[in-house]
Order: sequence, then C-alpha cells, then structure tokens
Amino acid sequence: MTLRGWTLPQTDTGRSAILTPPPWHYSGEIISVDFTADAGVVAMLMPPGIEPAGDGSASFVFADWCSASDADPRIRDDPARGQYKEAYVVVYGTYDGKPVARVPFIWVDNDLSLVRGLIQGFPKKLGAIAMTRAVELGSGGVRKEVGSRFAAHVSALGRRLATVTVDLTDEHEKLYPRGIATPFLHTRLWPSIDGTAPAVHELSRGAIADFELGRVFSGSATLELGSSEFEELDRLAPRAVGTGYVHSAAFSVTGGTAIPIREGGTL
Amino acid sequence: MTLRGWTLPQTDTGRSAILTPPPWHYSGEIISVDFTADAGVVAMLMPPGIEPAGDGSASFVFADWCSASDADPRIRDDPARGQYKEAYVVVYGTYDGKPVARVPFIWVDNDLSLVRGLIQGFPKKLGAIAMTRAVELGSGGVRKEVGSRFAAHVSALGRRLATVTVDLTDEHEKLYPRGIATPFLHTRLWPSIDGTAPAVHELSRGAIADFELGRVFSGSATLELGSSEFEELDRLAPRAVGTGYVHSAAFSVTGGTAIPIREGGTL
Amino acid sequence: MTLRGWTLPQTDTGRSAILTPPPWHYSGEIISVDFTADAGVVAMLMPPGIEPAGDGSASFVFADWCSASDADPRIRDDPARGQYKEAYVVVYGTYDGKPVARVPFIWVDNDLSLVRGLIQGFPKKLGAIAMTRAVELGSGGVRKEVGSRFAAHVSALGRRLATVTVDLTDEHEKLYPRGIATPFLHTRLWPSIDGTAPAVHELSRGAIADFELGRVFSGSATLELGSSEFEELDRLAPRAVGTGYVHSAAFSVTGGTAIPIREGGTL
Amino acid sequence: MTLRGWTLPQTDTGRSAILTPPPWHYSGEIISVDFTADAGVVAMLMPPGIEPAGDGSASFVFADWCSASDADPRIRDDPARGQYKEAYVVVYGTYDGKPVARVPFIWVDNDLSLVRGLIQGFPKKLGAIAMTRAVELGSGGVRKEVGSRFAAHVSALGRRLATVTVDLTDEHEKLYPRGIATPFLHTRLWPSIDGTAPAVHELSRGAIADFELGRVFSGSATLELGSSEFEELDRLAPRAVGTGYVHSAAFSVTGGTAIPIREGGTL
Repeated sequence: MTLRGWTLPQTDTGRSAILTPPPWHYSGEIISVDFTADAGVVAMLMPPGIEPAGDGSASFVFADWCSASDADPRIRDDPARGQYKEAYVVVYGTYDGKPVARVPFIWVDNDLSLVRGLIQGFPKKLGAIAMTRAVELGSGGVRKEVGSRFAAHVSALGRRLATVTVDLTDEHEKLYPRGIATPFLHTRLWPSIDGTAPAVHELSRGAIADFELGRVFSGSATLELGSSEFEELDRLAPRAVGTGYVHSAAFSVTGGTAIPIREGGTL
Repeated sequence: MTLRGWTLPQTDTGRSAILTPPPWHYSGEIISVDFTADAGVVAMLMPPGIEPAGDGSASFVFADWCSASDADPRIRDDPARGQYKEAYVVVYGTYDGKPVARVPFIWVDNDLSLVRGLIQGFPKKLGAIAMTRAVELGSGGVRKEVGSRFAAHVSALGRRLATVTVDLTDEHEKLYPRGIATPFLHTRLWPSIDGTAPAVHELSRGAIADFELGRVFSGSATLELGSSEFEELDRLAPRAVGTGYVHSAAFSVTGGTAIPIREGGTL
Repeated sequence: MTLRGWTLPQTDTGRSAILTPPPWHYSGEIISVDFTADAGVVAMLMPPGIEPAGDGSASFVFADWCSASDADPRIRDDPARGQYKEAYVVVYGTYDGKPVARVPFIWVDNDLSLVRGLIQGFPKKLGAIAMTRAVELGSGGVRKEVGSRFAAHVSALGRRLATVTVDLTDEHEKLYPRGIATPFLHTRLWPSIDGTAPAVHELSRGAIADFELGRVFSGSATLELGSSEFEELDRLAPRAVGTGYVHSAAFSVTGGTAIPIREGGTL
Repeated sequence: MTLRGWTLPQTDTGRSAILTPPPWHYSGEIISVDFTADAGVVAMLMPPGIEPAGDGSASFVFADWCSASDADPRIRDDPARGQYKEAYVVVYGTYDGKPVARVPFIWVDNDLSLVRGLIQGFPKKLGAIAMTRAVELGSGGVRKEVGSRFAAHVSALGRRLATVTVDLTDEHEKLYPRGIATPFLHTRLWPSIDGTAPAVHELSRGAIADFELGRVFSGSATLELGSSEFEELDRLAPRAVGTGYVHSAAFSVTGGTAIPIREGGTL
C-alpha cells in the first residue's frame, strides 16, 4: 500500500499524521524581555556561518498561540490540538551580512508544536508554561494597559527555567520588539539510525507571510534564569535586563528554504 | 504554637495555606450551552428543599478564569496559581419559591480552585479542559464575532465527558445566559473521620458582588456527554440542545451564608 | 431526593462521590531521608498540645502508592484512579507523652488522594513527583539492592521543592524508618463559609491496621529543599542529612478518632 | 563555533541535546493483548515491501519503561527523564519472507521517548497512559500472580483510545508474546522544509541486544478501541480478542540499519 502523511504516523488515508505541510497560521499573545548575556557564551551557541552580534544581546520570549493548518481544519477546530504555549531564548547575529536571530533553547507544551518545531529547526523540548493573560472585565486579573504587571514562567522536568515580569509603562502604535521581529535562521538536524553522519543537517529559514503586530506595551522587566541538570540556560544568566514587551502577534509560515551544511559542520 | 491559615497547611506565618478567605475575584471567558435532560433524572439530583424546575432544563458551562484574592496577592501575580479552567453542569429549580441553580458535577484543572470550590459546595474533581479562545490578529484562531465557531471539551481519567460547539450568529448588548446568571444553592459536605455523621452538612450560597457580563454572542450549539466508570453524566444525555453562548464574565465572592441540614437530610 | 455520597458530588445513587468511607488500603514503594532542620522552625510548625522533639529531627518521604477502598472496587481496578505519588515532610514530637509525627507539608498528584488526605488532616496540595522505581531485568534502571542509587523529586507550580538521592549500602530484615513508622497526629481543618470560626477544627489520628514493611535498604543520602513563593519549605533547610531508606510498605486505614480543638486553638 | 549534539538543541558542549546516540537500554513492565482486526484494514496500513499476514492478527501493547543511555547517565539518574509509559498497536507481516511487526500507532508520555521513537521510526504522539502495577505487600493493589486482574488504558487529547484488562490464569517460564517478540520494521520519515520530497524516507530496523523476558503470565483479556478525530484506531476494532500477557522485559538498542525507499514509495 502507498502510505500517506507528511509525517508519521502514515496510513492509507493520511488522516493520522500529526502534521500536514504548510501553510500554517499563528495568532498569539507575547510576553518578552530583552537582556544582555555573556557575549562569549552567546558566541559559543552560534553555528559556523553566523557571526554573533558580539554584545551579548538576547531576548526571552513567551508566546501563547492558537494555530491552524490549511490542509487540516482539525487543528484550529480543536482547542486541545491547535493551542499551545512556548518559551524560548533568542540570540542575535548576522548571516551574509544581514541580521538573523537564533533560538538556542525552546520549550513547548504540545506534541504537534514540538514536532512542527523540530522540522523547522526549533530545538523544542516539552515544558510547562504559565503566562498572565489579559482580562476584559472585573478584578480577577489585569488588563493589557499601562499600569499592569504581566508575568510568565517556564519549567521542565520540575526545574524552573525562567521567570519574567513586565510592568507596562508605555503603549506604542508601531514598535517591533527584536525578539519577535528578527528573522530566524535555524539548524535542521535529524540523525541517521545506522551510525553514519546526520540524515538531515542544514540551515533553514521559514517563509513568513502576513506578519502582524498589535499595539505593543513596553515597560521595565525582570528576568531570572534557573538551573537544570538537562539545560545550559544558566550560562546565559542576565548581566543586564532591558525592556519588556506585551503584545499580540500573528503570522503565517508558507514554507521554507534550506542551506546544506558541509562535512565538518561548515556551510 | 498557634498555627495560622484559613485552610491547611497551617504554619506560624499562615503563608503556606492554599487559600485565604474571601473576598475572591474572578474574570473569565465563558462558553455555555443550554440543553434539556430527562426531567426525572434532574429531579433525582436535587436535595430535599429544592423543587426541580420539572422540565429537565440544564446548561453545560465551560469557563477560563483568572482569579484573585484580596488577602493573597500571589494568586493573581502568578498565572500558574490564579488561572484555571473548569467545566460544569447546571440544573434548575426553586428554593423558598425563588429560582436557584445547582451544580451536580464540575471538573477543574487547578488544586487551589478545587479546594476553594469544595469549601463553597462546588463538587469539584480534577479534569482536563480545552476551550477555543478568541484571537485579536491573524488566522491562527477565530475572533469573538458573529460567524465564528467556538468549541470546548472536558475529560477526566482519560474519558471524554463533554464536548460542545457554538456557532455564533447573534450579538447582544444585554443578555443573561441562564447558566451563569442564576444564583447557585450548593451543598457543603465534609465527612467526619470517626464514622459519625458528616462534620459539615449544610446548604450554602455565595455572596456575589460586582457581577458583570460583556457582550454576549449566541448561536446554535452541539453537546455530547460521554460515559465514565466514575461519573453519571451520561444519565443527563441531552434530549434537545438549545442555544449556546460565548462571553466574558466577572464577579466577586465576598462571603456566603449557610443553612444547616437536619438529621436525615432534611432542611 | 435524599442525596447519597460520603463526599461531594452527591447523587441519588452515590456513585459519583470522589470517595467512599474507610476501610482504605495502601501498598507502595517508599524512598525517604532523615534530616535535621532548625529546631526552632520545627517548633513553630507544631500546634498547641504537641511538644516538639526539640532536636530539629525530620524526614522527607516519597511514596508511590496503589490504593483501594472496600466500598468502591473502581479505585483499585482503574490504575488512573487508585495509583498516585506523594511527597511529604515529617517532623517529630510528643502528645500526651507519646511519640507522634506531624506532616506540615505534603504534595500529591491525584485528586482522590488530595481530598482523602484533607479529610484526614494531611495538608495536601498538587505536585509533580518522580521516583526511581526498581526494575527486574536488564540495564534500563536499577534493582532494589545494595549498590543501587535511588532518586526522587517533587515540584509544584513549576518550582522544585525537594530532591533526594539514596545510595543503598545495607539491607535489613526488620527496621522501621522513623518517617513511616511513627503515628501521625493531624489537624483537620475545614472553613465555614459565613466568616465564623472553622466548621471543623480538631486533632485527628487514623486507625491503622495490617501495617507491613518489606526488606528495608538503607544508605547515605542527599536532600535539597527549594524555594517557592507559595511554600515555606526552605525554612526547613537541612543542617545535616542522615540515613536514606528504600522499601515497600502497606497498611490499611480503618477509620480515625478526632479530638476537638477549643476556641483559641488550644486542646 | 562547531555545535555538538546528536539531536537538537546543539551547543558547544552538547549537554543540552535531548538525546545521545545508542546504545540505549530499556527495562520495563508489559501488559499486552492479542486481537484480530479487519484483515483488509491491516493490509492498508502496510508499506510497499511488507506482505501483510492476511489474518488481521494484531496486538495492543502497554509498557512502563525505565530507560538509560550509555552516553548520558542523566537519563537513568533522573526518574523524570528516563521513565515513561507507552501504548501501541502491533500488526504482523513478512518482509523478504521473514516475519516482521509494524507499529502503525503509538502514544507516549515523555518527550525524550517521543523524539527517540521518531528517529527510529516509531510514529509517536503524546498520550496519557495508566497501567496496573504489581505490589509486593498489602491489599492496595494486586500481585503479579495467577488470579490477579491487570488493566491499562491510553488517551490523547481527552479521548480514550484503548482500554484493556487481563485476568491472569497461567504462568510460563518460557513464552514469547508475539507483540513483544517479533522484530519491528519501521518507516523513518522526516519532511524537507522546502516543499521537496521527504528529507528522510527509509525502512529501518533496530539492532537489538540482550533481550530478556521474565516470567510471563497469561490469561483471558478484553480490549476496547475508541474513536478520536485525530486517530484511525477504531478502524482496527477487534473482531476477536485473544490472550493477554503480563510480564517484565528488557533489551538494548545498539544501533540500526536503514533501507532507502525509492521515489514513489517503493523499496
């Protein structure tokens, strides 16, 4: 039988695959904080071909997404399938002389998103993520407005990895927080099973369309990075914490491009 | 040492207790569906003193809450603590000639809310709950507007208990869905440990303040109730499914009143 | 209708209640560590009537239980219902001149056990717990034998609360680790809803039958207690870490006795 | 910088990668049930090159694993990392004239195992799995002995996918349940990101060493398969349910071999 499915599991119908191919659509709420890490550590997280910014600049981003896939309406229709939260580090550099962002570490709470991330080159693991969400009425929560405090945290395997707060002091019609607005350049990596070189090893970038930001609120922020036996996040301990941002965002991924990495890890 | 704490765990400081007393504040998003169950089954779920409505009228409500407590700012400040989702059945009757609502079954995904519910007389168990949430931008999700479909479901111990959809067709400035707007009359019940009569057995009602509803969207709905070895929800299988509602809501609980139940279960 | 059920939710049949009354049966695997905390802090966690041991002696216990209830075979029959893990602190004192143990803090991963604990006076909250379990074959894990290392940890709301390791060096036919073998004296506490004194406030002890221990393995141990906004566990930071234990245990709870606490918190 | 890591995330040290390469070791407890499905449906789940057995024979297997990796001691040392449960279907056929087993569907509760499975060709998704585990003492659970009933179930996205029971009637020194003893032939599949043919598409088999089974208990069994919007498991609804098995198992994966699949899906 010819089996169908963009990913496993494949069947004759293709209906069991965890993922259908792009276009994929994302609408979400973002809480992010810019910070400065040890520039030497940031440099050590860059692959050959990407020049680190050199100033240790970095961002920590939390996102609460609703997602959809043109080829599979079930993803948007079932909130247990299409919704998820993720938390990630962004570091900055240049590739071919143009600014790029790298995501060295990322955690997510949904298996579809984990696999979709790995396919794109996001190095996803599972984590537990909590984020302040704005309320419309009453005093059970805070509104997305100047004066409110937003908070977020992520843990994995019972270890708190990052905790942020942002006190909203300013509202902007047009402002592009660096952590969400810099194009990602990922590494796609998939091992072979027979002990040979990786079956897939390439730089990749997503083709992004219909990128939108809502009103952006900014303010003073805090960021604490924690230790875990399984992570190296504490090597990025903030030397300075910059501005925090709270806003809506949306975009589509319509595909991607890949740049093979030569033997020895060079481009 | 005198130990402090409105609930366990008590310590000298009182800081470890899972709950502080009211006032408590709630701000949330609601997806609910009115339906008709077997009137005889509904009658069998009413305690002495509450006259069932007699028509089998019922509602299934999903809520995504942010909550706060005046005496403990940590609850609002940490999204992992104050936020939770719950799903519950509402049935209708009269007590002392006035309309009351009863919640025979409810599931929640947060331990603070579970204990806070039990103290008030909500018969909470843990469950896993998913609800469509409205997005502001893009096509990863749906907006809270006419034409959108919202969905929600709850499961416990790996059994799907209820699944609803609502297709929004109308928007209302002032409309009070019955499931959220009828005053609850609960049973508070806490066993003794020595085999004697219950240590606490009383009817109770919350003192509600600052009740607010946002714009209410309504439309046609579906509701499926599932089977579980541990539940009796399938006895309420819908004979007819009525209108569904999607809206924001907020209120405060400032305390409550209790009516002791006499020996033999009568008031 | 007379509603039935030892706990909420009550129905005409009583089949939905999360709990039936004792006898309850427990069979499990234990990893525990004795340690010494600040004696002054331990004293501050004791209620009036219990004399603290005065030496800061304490234990941290992890347990992986299978549980059953004579009145509800569903609990043992469904592994999702009857199985759970818990982690707790034990401190020691005397009551009426006899040794008693207190559990100031405990976390569990199952709602039935959470409610069953609260009814007995265990101050349970939800937590995520991991424990080494012994394997019978192969090298994917360790055996319960001298030379093995066991580990366990607990987290709640994304904060690691405690981490233990035990390196097994000795095997004992008859040995009763203090943390599992000292009779508990709990505080049962259930608030009123109308702002008056607690509806239930009493010391309580379980009636224990058929207590069994398997072979007990002991050895050197480590214990780290962590910080959380919602806990006071770090006040018990170990000044010295003693012996660790790994063993099976079983017992039944056939009921309990209660001692009312007078106004002002005295006995 | 040369980045290290057999999988993502890669860093200069390689310590953050979710996985190190084989050898991997597995020790676990198995509950499995043989059953007969529609032979035509089973045939439709076979890739080109595998001849279906033709009789609809299949097994449903639950496993509770402890796992270890020679290159990463952290996996065995932290029970939150190395332990997991999984549930899967096995169907049978021949490849090159020799018996092979296929796993068309599998769910697991741990991200490391999910990724390790995908790399080998197990089509893993996340699920919630509960399994009776044998106790050594007392009456809180059952022993692994004739007369006991074991149960297991798996759910994903709030839908119960499979429920099994096995009543143990016989004990065997040497018996190899088909679901655990037949060599797997998997499909490794990893999409490209640029819309071209899959980056990885090959048949694969693991190199298995040190396979061990403990005493095998067998008996009469039940199996129910459930429906989900995201699965096709109900197409395999049992026409007959055969013997169930409960036993320990262990093995190592030392590597694997891959057979490329030509254009068009043929071997």
